[in-house]
Amino acid sequence: MSVKYILTVQCNDRAGVIADIATLISGMAGNILDFSQHSALDVGVFLARIRFEVPDAVTVADFATIFQQIAEKYNMDWRIYPENQKLRAAILVSKTRHTLYELLLKHQDGQLNCDFPVIISNHSDLAGVATQFHIPFYQVDPAKGKQACEADINQILKEYSIDLVILARYMQILSKEFTDRWSYRVINIHHGFLPAFMGAKPYHQAWYKGVKLIGATAHFANENLDQGPIIAQDVIHVQDTMSIAEFILKGQDVERKVLFEAVKLYLEHRVFVVGGRTFILD
Amino acid sequence: MSVKYILTVQCNDRAGVIADIATLISGMAGNILDFSQHSALDVGVFLARIRFEVPDAVTVADFATIFQQIAEKYNMDWRIYPENQKLRAAILVSKTRHTLYELLLKHQDGQLNCDFPVIISNHSDLAGVATQFHIPFYQVDPAKGKQACEADINQILKEYSIDLVILARYMQILSKEFTDRWSYRVINIHHGFLPAFMGAKPYHQAWYKGVKLIGATAHFANENLDQGPIIAQDVIHVQDTMSIAEFILKGQDVERKVLFEAVKLYLEHRVFVVGGRTFILD
Amino acid sequence: MSVKYILTVQCNDRAGVIADIATLISGMAGNILDFSQHSALDVGVFLARIRFEVPDAVTVADFATIFQQIAEKYNMDWRIYPENQKLRAAILVSKTRHTLYELLLKHQDGQLNCDFPVIISNHSDLAGVATQFHIPFYQVDPAKGKQACEADINQILKEYSIDLVILARYMQILSKEFTDRWSYRVINIHHGFLPAFMGAKPYHQAWYKGVKLIGATAHFANENLDQGPIIAQDVIHVQDTMSIAEFILKGQDVERKVLFEAVKLYLEHRVFVVGGRTFILD
Amino acid sequence: MSVKYILTVQCNDRAGVIADIATLISGMAGNILDFSQHSALDVGVFLARIRFEVPDAVTVADFATIFQQIAEKYNMDWRIYPENQKLRAAILVSKTRHTLYELLLKHQDGQLNCDFPVIISNHSDLAGVATQFHIPFYQVDPAKGKQACEADINQILKEYSIDLVILARYMQILSKEFTDRWSYRVINIHHGFLPAFMGAKPYHQAWYKGVKLIGATAHFANENLDQGPIIAQDVIHVQDTMSIAEFILKGQDVERKVLFEAVKLYLEHRVFVVGGRTFILD
Repeated sequence: MSVKYILTVQCNDRAGVIADIATLISGMAGNILDFSQHSALDVGVFLARIRFEVPDAVTVADFATIFQQIAEKYNMDWRIYPENQKLRAAILVSKTRHTLYELLLKHQDGQLNCDFPVIISNHSDLAGVATQFHIPFYQVDPAKGKQACEADINQILKEYSIDLVILARYMQILSKEFTDRWSYRVINIHHGFLPAFMGAKPYHQAWYKGVKLIGATAHFANENLDQGPIIAQDVIHVQDTMSIAEFILKGQDVERKVLFEAVKLYLEHRVFVVGGRTFILD
Repeated sequence: MSVKYILTVQCNDRAGVIADIATLISGMAGNILDFSQHSALDVGVFLARIRFEVPDAVTVADFATIFQQIAEKYNMDWRIYPENQKLRAAILVSKTRHTLYELLLKHQDGQLNCDFPVIISNHSDLAGVATQFHIPFYQVDPAKGKQACEADINQILKEYSIDLVILARYMQILSKEFTDRWSYRVINIHHGFLPAFMGAKPYHQAWYKGVKLIGATAHFANENLDQGPIIAQDVIHVQDTMSIAEFILKGQDVERKVLFEAVKLYLEHRVFVVGGRTFILD
Repeated sequence: MSVKYILTVQCNDRAGVIADIATLISGMAGNILDFSQHSALDVGVFLARIRFEVPDAVTVADFATIFQQIAEKYNMDWRIYPENQKLRAAILVSKTRHTLYELLLKHQDGQLNCDFPVIISNHSDLAGVATQFHIPFYQVDPAKGKQACEADINQILKEYSIDLVILARYMQILSKEFTDRWSYRVINIHHGFLPAFMGAKPYHQAWYKGVKLIGATAHFANENLDQGPIIAQDVIHVQDTMSIAEFILKGQDVERKVLFEAVKLYLEHRVFVVGGRTFILD
Repeated sequence: MSVKYILTVQCNDRAGVIADIATLISGMAGNILDFSQHSALDVGVFLARIRFEVPDAVTVADFATIFQQIAEKYNMDWRIYPENQKLRAAILVSKTRHTLYELLLKHQDGQLNCDFPVIISNHSDLAGVATQFHIPFYQVDPAKGKQACEADINQILKEYSIDLVILARYMQILSKEFTDRWSYRVINIHHGFLPAFMGAKPYHQAWYKGVKLIGATAHFANENLDQGPIIAQDVIHVQDTMSIAEFILKGQDVERKVLFEAVKLYLEHRVFVVGGRTFILD
């Protein structure tokens, strides 16, 4: 019997890393299934994602003990994940449902390797959707103030042992305290092609600017609104005969697509952050 | 024998405009060939582009006399262009040739309804390309100072009776005097997806931001660098395994495509400017 | 008080049509809101879609009486639709739900100007989805034979006064009798880029052929499988590292997008059929 | 001093291949620069492209001697290419120039790692373009019969020691003898989205079918017209208001893009053929 792991590695670019990793896995009677690697020469960084299988006697702790030597040699930042271990993700929503539905339907179809144990909102509108999918729904109240509201959220996240927070059009600005605590574990969808059109009403901004494409961007939330590292983004062409209202409707298709992609990439451990930007290893 | 015209109309959105124009053209024994119209309800403006043919006895002056009544009734901003009349466009370049070649090759293939009587540059690098296409090439010297250099350019543009100035990666910032004089008659290609990444080295900016698409934007140049109304723009997907140098190379394909499109739309009188943005009527 | 109509016109291309129509509508104290027209010179056909408003005293019958003269002069094929009149569409499904959800969710959001009074399937799998949206669900049994099964369907369609049949991955081949009876009123989604990959298992065909893009096509169903006039289609890029199973999952996004687009275009009366192909007037 | 090689490997999918290759290269004091690999589980095939550097004392022959053992163990089909060794490619053209210009301009910009020592045509139209780029131009005469004409071509290809033949809109059907002799070394651009619209006048076929996207496909030429393995393909959206002539013009942009991509992929040794289709390793 074997077990599958995903190993992610980040270090300064130096000769020999690939062979050393391959040899080590081979030495555990392991087999590399997928090997993705990139040397980002512009910043001198080596990144790799290795999916491999080893006899199931090899635990994460065993691997860590053996891998420690290489990790120190190259001064690596590394992680290992059992492939069958599902992360637990909370979805935060507000009133619009298109990104929520996208996550829940594709999750049901087996396209997202995680659990969705809880949905949290500042409005009650989407409680019915949560119920359709048999997921507990919690309504928090921003009127209590951001601090109290975020305390409630943190309490719920703790209760449900959440690993990842997905802002599926949550529409509230999170405090620095919150984004720091959940650093690189909050994915937000912004309804604009960042870094253009940050902040409020991006479709209105885009329409008045007369852009010929509109887009959406999924990114890690940090203390600077809509400026965290971009995970996924896409655009669609628009005609100048379209109204602002039509921008908003058409944009929803991009939003849901991009948020789903970002969450999927994250769950597959393909997202690396270097120097304030991401590198995605396919 | 008949002659073909293109009529462009811009006015406040009011009932009856379409029928009044159609009736008037019909009354000249004219025939409407193409009728494009858009009521931009978000700003209350009516726009139309009408391509029609009339007996060749009907001159532009005749049309103007007859059309004056409707134009006043609706307080129209309008223009009429004989379809067979080619605008005269000057191309300003610097050292890179991909957008220049695109314009010249597609022009030779009959895809651009204009003449290119002159090419102007601040470097000599592309003189050979101009000669291949039998177009006079002039080199101006920015070292003389922007004012003197632009005076030279204006002199050349005047000599060649130029109607439109195309900045095909010209890489110099034009003075307010120049862009005012040539208001809505200077088309620039910016190698970024505006309004993101204005100014210098947009591909470097894009790479360090970690965007997942890069783009180019053709726009009217005005006194605010890279902020004039957008005429055409497009993007391509990039992988995070691409270097800055690869961004630059890949981006060239978008730049040449978008500049060609913008010039073509302009020459076909499809570009309307309202409230600082364009509306393109297909 | 006024009422809005959509007029569609198809005739041989001849001078004067546009002006005659505009004058006639103007003569009814009408106002043209949108005017789309195309002269398909390759086949000598004129097509137009005119959205206009007239005083609400003007009924469809009134319009027809007045319009008859022009219609005869140009030997037109024409139709008029009150904009506020919703068509009644039946959705036929099988086991997969992604296109069904797309139609139902976007319909709830007000993006489709129709009613969905009934859902019909040859399996029970999607009964729960229908119920979520409070739409009656009927299960027919292909095991009874195609003829009996189609008789059942026709009976249900009649009962619910259906105008349009949408095959949202219905997966059964319809008889010539059925498609003849519902000529140009059955929209099917095929999970391949037609005319490539007709028939069964198009994603398998595509994978073994090694295509670099996969697509989907919405078309009118007729007696020839997957060969009716195409209404909408789109593609996405695929990597050669994707499996057949991944093609199938990724393709679902295109299928739902394209079917929704086709239904929307149909409901807005933008689909013209000439010589076995469609022309869409935007 | 070091030298860079590209190694390509194809074999049945078995555990241990990656580690064995990595260990072997490491054992030569080599360093893996890029490692791309894919296990195509649908057909049970392992593919890899490894770019590495070794001390320049290591010749191709040295590598082969050492690698032989692994190659036999896994029953590999493998090749090794010194990265600095340029293939010699002949371009065959007819009358249209857009794909020829694309190859020559991008080659001059350093985007294609090959030499273009000769251009061959059945017409004289493009002799001037060849001369602009200082490349010998030969005109063969199909009127002599396909056999004699191909004999002439083969003679020229031999004289110039050609490795790769690029059909840049050559427009002649090659004999089975020719494609057999140059098996997997002839790249053709077809102006249609294969496998749809094989053969003559694909844009006419597409227009009459009413497709909503048109495309182009670069593929290896074999004895079956337009049916060889696809290397690259792309599409663009078209409006139904476009004429056949506009399809042809717009399609040229896709043709040149796709042919360039295919040649680039080939020269970078990223194209694998398995069971009649290609797999591209990025």
